[in-house]
Amino acid sequence: MLAHRLIEKKRDGGRLDPGEWRALVMAYAAGHVPDYQMSAFLMACFLKGLDHGETAALTEAMLNSGEKFDLESIGKPRLDKHSIGGVGDKVSLILAPLVSLFDVAIPMVSGRGLGHTGGTLDKLESIPGFRTDLSMSQARSQIEELGCALLGQTSEIAPADRKMYALRDATATVASIPLIASSIMSKKLAEDLTGLVIDIKRGSGAFLTELDEVMALAHEMISIGDSHGCPVVALFTAMDRPLGRACGNALEVEEAIATLKGEGPPDLVEVTIALSAEMLLLAGVASDAASARADLHEALVSGRAAEQFRRIVERQHGDPAVLDDPALLPQAAECELYTAPRSGFVQRVEPRAIGKGVTALGGGRTTMADVIDPAVGFVITAKPGDWAQANEPLASIYARDRAGIERGRATLRSAIVIGDEAEPPLPLISHRVTSAGVEVLA
Amino acid sequence: MLAHRLIEKKRDGGRLDPGEWRALVMAYAAGHVPDYQMSAFLMACFLKGLDHGETAALTEAMLNSGEKFDLESIGKPRLDKHSIGGVGDKVSLILAPLVSLFDVAIPMVSGRGLGHTGGTLDKLESIPGFRTDLSMSQARSQIEELGCALLGQTSEIAPADRKMYALRDATATVASIPLIASSIMSKKLAEDLTGLVIDIKRGSGAFLTELDEVMALAHEMISIGDSHGCPVVALFTAMDRPLGRACGNALEVEEAIATLKGEGPPDLVEVTIALSAEMLLLAGVASDAASARADLHEALVSGRAAEQFRRIVERQHGDPAVLDDPALLPQAAECELYTAPRSGFVQRVEPRAIGKGVTALGGGRTTMADVIDPAVGFVITAKPGDWAQANEPLASIYARDRAGIERGRATLRSAIVIGDEAEPPLPLISHRVTSAGVEVLA
Repeated sequence: MLAHRLIEKKRDGGRLDPGEWRALVMAYAAGHVPDYQMSAFLMACFLKGLDHGETAALTEAMLNSGEKFDLESIGKPRLDKHSIGGVGDKVSLILAPLVSLFDVAIPMVSGRGLGHTGGTLDKLESIPGFRTDLSMSQARSQIEELGCALLGQTSEIAPADRKMYALRDATATVASIPLIASSIMSKKLAEDLTGLVIDIKRGSGAFLTELDEVMALAHEMISIGDSHGCPVVALFTAMDRPLGRACGNALEVEEAIATLKGEGPPDLVEVTIALSAEMLLLAGVASDAASARADLHEALVSGRAAEQFRRIVERQHGDPAVLDDPALLPQAAECELYTAPRSGFVQRVEPRAIGKGVTALGGGRTTMADVIDPAVGFVITAKPGDWAQANEPLASIYARDRAGIERGRATLRSAIVIGDEAEPPLPLISHRVTSAGVEVLA
Repeated sequence: MLAHRLIEKKRDGGRLDPGEWRALVMAYAAGHVPDYQMSAFLMACFLKGLDHGETAALTEAMLNSGEKFDLESIGKPRLDKHSIGGVGDKVSLILAPLVSLFDVAIPMVSGRGLGHTGGTLDKLESIPGFRTDLSMSQARSQIEELGCALLGQTSEIAPADRKMYALRDATATVASIPLIASSIMSKKLAEDLTGLVIDIKRGSGAFLTELDEVMALAHEMISIGDSHGCPVVALFTAMDRPLGRACGNALEVEEAIATLKGEGPPDLVEVTIALSAEMLLLAGVASDAASARADLHEALVSGRAAEQFRRIVERQHGDPAVLDDPALLPQAAECELYTAPRSGFVQRVEPRAIGKGVTALGGGRTTMADVIDPAVGFVITAKPGDWAQANEPLASIYARDRAGIERGRATLRSAIVIGDEAEPPLPLISHRVTSAGVEVLA
């Protein structure tokens, strides 16, 4: 009767109080509320919305459905970064080792790729031997030792969220701002953080495309963080083109390693440094943004960040030799250049089409049960605004076989648009949002 | 993938085409779409609505999920009446035998009571031995022989509707006009009718309370009927007080038998005659409303209608002696009068409170699994507008035991409101709606 009454309340645009959210989430996690009631409820939430108080109460209820890290005794600021989907987004692989050099703790819980977006766990697992299935106590020991652990959402962390997210995925109720915000924050707050940086992707390849939507999502997450004593800073970054050049799991690891050595593509370096600097400021280990950025650059070019990544790879059973020889990563059987079909300006490199193209090559998932091929993907050197000369290379295609090469070619033909006029892309980093307000950066 | 796409479409306010409705309903009936997807879809339908074409397509899909009667070869007009819930509504028990005297066929499929409203099947089954579980072929033989059969929704009739209705009941998606209309019409069209009369209840005890809602429901059902060659006439009748005096299964059968003998309470007789007359007009067996009403009255006072009911009871294994001796119906152990606590005008007799009171005595269901006690209930002689004298009887309470009598007394104390001024009740029959338009009758 509880579930029926709460479905009815939300259906009619009503507001659940914190006790009702707690009771519903607990009953669902325990199997006392069936999926068919919860999915009707979630559709009502999707269409009628949740206010800030409800979103915070839902987050709290999902958080309390599982275990939380208890990292306070480590005696360091605990930071993490979360990104809202994207194509070519390998920032976590660089940022986690980089920031953990600065006497902070990074208990980074990541996810897997689904649909057109990739996932950090899948990328890490393309390193031979690398294990992301750490228990919370294994992760804790590693954080004490190295300052950083890279793990997946265990069954201990926010199990109600896991169950609800799977249901939302099956019932077209994912794209709701309060539901997204509470799902993310319930997992991030389980990390016992003292600060969180959110990379909110914007543009045609992002989950949300409109500025008012990403702004609403940022404010929702900041508000939840505030109510849990975890300050949140959000940067809005461009996802109207892939980030960096590599799209595909092992290819992205290779690019991340190059970036850790100070040899990354400029857009990837810029976004990574910006997010990392926010973490250092939140942690109070940098006095100002300029010195934070300088220190971070130095850690990349000096090789210190790469060495830290080597230690993490080794600790998580991966083969550290991949840092010296990327050929040890899974390699695609076939590789071919893709050249410009005509001369002109590169107007668009559509990230959604590229992400779906990676999946079509076998490198992504359409359902969580799919097994992925880590070796396949694209390295796209062309960026919107570039001048392309006919028959000059724009990208490389990595595939299992000739049919894959042809499929990849078809993807790039539709994804890379060349025209007579340059079209302005979104600014790489456009806004910075904190509980103090919004700064427009570009 | 089909279900996900269609949930998304309806969630965003889109329109499903007839092929999509057919595919979804068939996949759900076959178990290929899980309940949790269908319930999210139904909530999206509830909140976003369906247009006339979609409602017709959903009806068609649910109708085609099962068997249909094929009664054309009987060579008579096939009519039925459907009522949208109510308290004290025993019209079907009188109308079916009455109208079937006029050379028409009545294949009446009825339902059970749930919540505060009663159901025709439960009332019939309070007659010792009476069976409503006829197969479609048994019903057909009986219709050929007697012109009428009274049966329940078999598993053969619109099974997709059965499954969806149970899901809607559990997920707070019942009260949607297009979903109500398509659910009713899918079952009624399976009766292979040439005409249908709908009794749409209005007022505090009805499913829908507002005039614009009942009007929308009437138009929806008329539109579905038209698209299937089945003309529909709707009468709006008052449900701001119980219909007749008896509320409770066996008590209502007793009142129905009295009415069949020409000794019914005026409001019940009036509504029954009005609905029956519409059926005779739809069937083309009456030249005009006045002569239809006169013929129907004659059939009641002459005893012909009661004799026809006797034949039906006998044919469906019930004890026909109840027509001569109502004491053969289940009897409550305790019976007491309820008297007016003060003098004044009867302002309200709240049907919803009365219906819930019957359930509290054991005579109704809160879930479909509940077993009901047919003997309990109320006979309420007071009507809104009557003058009540302190300590004079307003009603009788029929209960299993003394505790029931006390519970019944508490029900009547809150349900029967006496005050200094008379409050005007709703007109008994207020509107007549057909595909030609709306007539305001009172």
